[in-house]
Amino acid sequence: MAEYKLTDGRIYAPAKKDPKVVEPGEYVIAAADLDHGHIYSMCEKLIAGGAVLKYVWDDKPEAIEAFVKRFPYVTVVDSVDRILEDPEVQLVCAAGIPNERADLCIRVMEAGKDYFVDKAPMTTLAQVDAVRETIKRTGRRMWCYYCERLNHEGSLLAGYMVEAGEIGDVIQVLGTGGHRYGANPRPEWFHIHEQYGGILGDIGSHQIEQFLYFTKNKDAKILSARVGNYSYPQYPEFEDFGDATLVGDNGALGYLRLDWHTPDGLRTWSDGRVYLLGTKGVIEVRKYEDLGRPDLPGNMVYFANEKGEYVIDANGVTGTPFFSEMILDALNRTENAMTQEHTLKAAELCLKAQEQAVHVQYDLMKK
Amino acid sequence: MAEYKLTDGRIYAPAKKDPKVVEPGEYVIAAADLDHGHIYSMCEKLIAGGAVLKYVWDDKPEAIEAFVKRFPYVTVVDSVDRILEDPEVQLVCAAGIPNERADLCIRVMEAGKDYFVDKAPMTTLAQVDAVRETIKRTGRRMWCYYCERLNHEGSLLAGYMVEAGEIGDVIQVLGTGGHRYGANPRPEWFHIHEQYGGILGDIGSHQIEQFLYFTKNKDAKILSARVGNYSYPQYPEFEDFGDATLVGDNGALGYLRLDWHTPDGLRTWSDGRVYLLGTKGVIEVRKYEDLGRPDLPGNMVYFANEKGEYVIDANGVTGTPFFSEMILDALNRTENAMTQEHTLKAAELCLKAQEQAVHVQYDLMKK
Repeated sequence: MAEYKLTDGRIYAPAKKDPKVVEPGEYVIAAADLDHGHIYSMCEKLIAGGAVLKYVWDDKPEAIEAFVKRFPYVTVVDSVDRILEDPEVQLVCAAGIPNERADLCIRVMEAGKDYFVDKAPMTTLAQVDAVRETIKRTGRRMWCYYCERLNHEGSLLAGYMVEAGEIGDVIQVLGTGGHRYGANPRPEWFHIHEQYGGILGDIGSHQIEQFLYFTKNKDAKILSARVGNYSYPQYPEFEDFGDATLVGDNGALGYLRLDWHTPDGLRTWSDGRVYLLGTKGVIEVRKYEDLGRPDLPGNMVYFANEKGEYVIDANGVTGTPFFSEMILDALNRTENAMTQEHTLKAAELCLKAQEQAVHVQYDLMKK
Repeated sequence: MAEYKLTDGRIYAPAKKDPKVVEPGEYVIAAADLDHGHIYSMCEKLIAGGAVLKYVWDDKPEAIEAFVKRFPYVTVVDSVDRILEDPEVQLVCAAGIPNERADLCIRVMEAGKDYFVDKAPMTTLAQVDAVRETIKRTGRRMWCYYCERLNHEGSLLAGYMVEAGEIGDVIQVLGTGGHRYGANPRPEWFHIHEQYGGILGDIGSHQIEQFLYFTKNKDAKILSARVGNYSYPQYPEFEDFGDATLVGDNGALGYLRLDWHTPDGLRTWSDGRVYLLGTKGVIEVRKYEDLGRPDLPGNMVYFANEKGEYVIDANGVTGTPFFSEMILDALNRTENAMTQEHTLKAAELCLKAQEQAVHVQYDLMKK
């Protein structure tokens, strides 16, 4: 991947090398709980970094069948215990039903292994505390697949640009994460509040992680939050809209909006954006597509600073170094990819937002 | 102006006729208080509709000089009383210091004339009540120059599209109104809270007016609001950031963000947007320019519905019918352009947001 040179000659994105950072056998992983499709890219990214995928486990035969099609060499085991018993396994990747992810985290850590989990890693603040305590007690690590930044070159480039001082200090992060519900029925747990954790607690975690990252905050306070169900009366516990405002310890501000209202005619699953308002400039990342512009891909970064306005196509520019860095952190017990506290704080704050949220009434239908 | 036909043949914008709706002398107006430059477009738009501009008054000679350059035929008077005394004058246009606009409104109405005022029309809720009472008592009318919609074809087209059911019910209006502070010093009143009314009370009025309009709400509740001064410590009472969340009586949601941080390199004064999230589609209006796209003008409307994604250049499509309709409302005492209650409610709600706003601390500078 080439480094990106802007028109004025400055370089924002470091040249990325081959993601492979370990030799075969140096880092052995396993997959357990395949409820969310993210498990595929989680494993693929680590395999690209040199990890060896040894085992898979799930209680749903059809999930195993699909997984083995993609990773034919993987050994299917009849219980997660087989994975936890094998001293060779260093990391367990999991994408189970959200409210079951923390329990598995604790079991994995008590078995002396690290844990890589799909977002959101927890659905209650008690689970956050329990995982924090377990990390402290066992010395093990948890990473979370906050893919809307970690697996997104446009968002990564925006981070490098902020780092380079391109827009001054970040005053506000405005993030929107629309999602398509889809024509096919979603699993039952997807609509049960206790299991999926609420819209802010679930997909809101991406947004809070980005807020903490772009504004360089270790902590923040939720100022307001709201959730509602505007189009799915058949699922009374489902929330198809949520938003929140927050302020970081350093005074930087956040607004995040989540919804399950991606229009049928949109060519991708989301018109997700992140808009950074800085003291000297702005950056907008049009994440997965450029609305109304089928000629353009996702990962387009639009920005203005003191000198002018620019557009950068971030595809192929930054790569996705998180996963290789995570492997090295696991082996060296460093925290270069992401600190444990950052990982947990994003999970904690989105659950606080969910807890504080007012439920907005909707009666447009009654007109 | 031609009507706009979308690719699928549907027509969103009605064909607009010549804005002139009255003959010379049928509608006579005057201008008083020239503190904000909006007074020029306010007068120009009404003149295009057929109004005759008879008088101008202001206590600043340089303001009068500039105004007369633009409208050489206008009669300069030495007191606003000359205007109020002349029975021929039907409407007074004013763009004074915000906290003085309501007093003039009451004087104008008690003199038996209507009033067209720059946004925001009031700076306190007491002023809103006083004007409401005066309208009731005198039977006179007040209109407000909410130009970010009324004088903006992209926003008007978005309204026609919502009216046509293009995106279903509007769930949320997300409006951002960045402004450039500018290199030249702003007048003193611009930085004194009592005089300009706070960032939400001032430029927030545009956003609330749009929220009420796009969501078809008569009233709304402010759920949260915040203001801050991030870059102008030399003006302790100035606010360069403000945002708020609100919910309308019908359950539709709003988020509005205002700031004075337009980057120096941006080619226009604002990257203002409005993004409508509907049950069946989305509409984004990139109001004054298209960030990073100097090849595109403002008034570009991007949207997606159940059928696909589209882009419409709204320039020349809708015209700006408000001003002609306002003249006809004045002559016929109808409320087609905008109801009095809508005009006042937008002013009231932005002041409620300002009153409720938490002041966010900013210490990024202290890093």
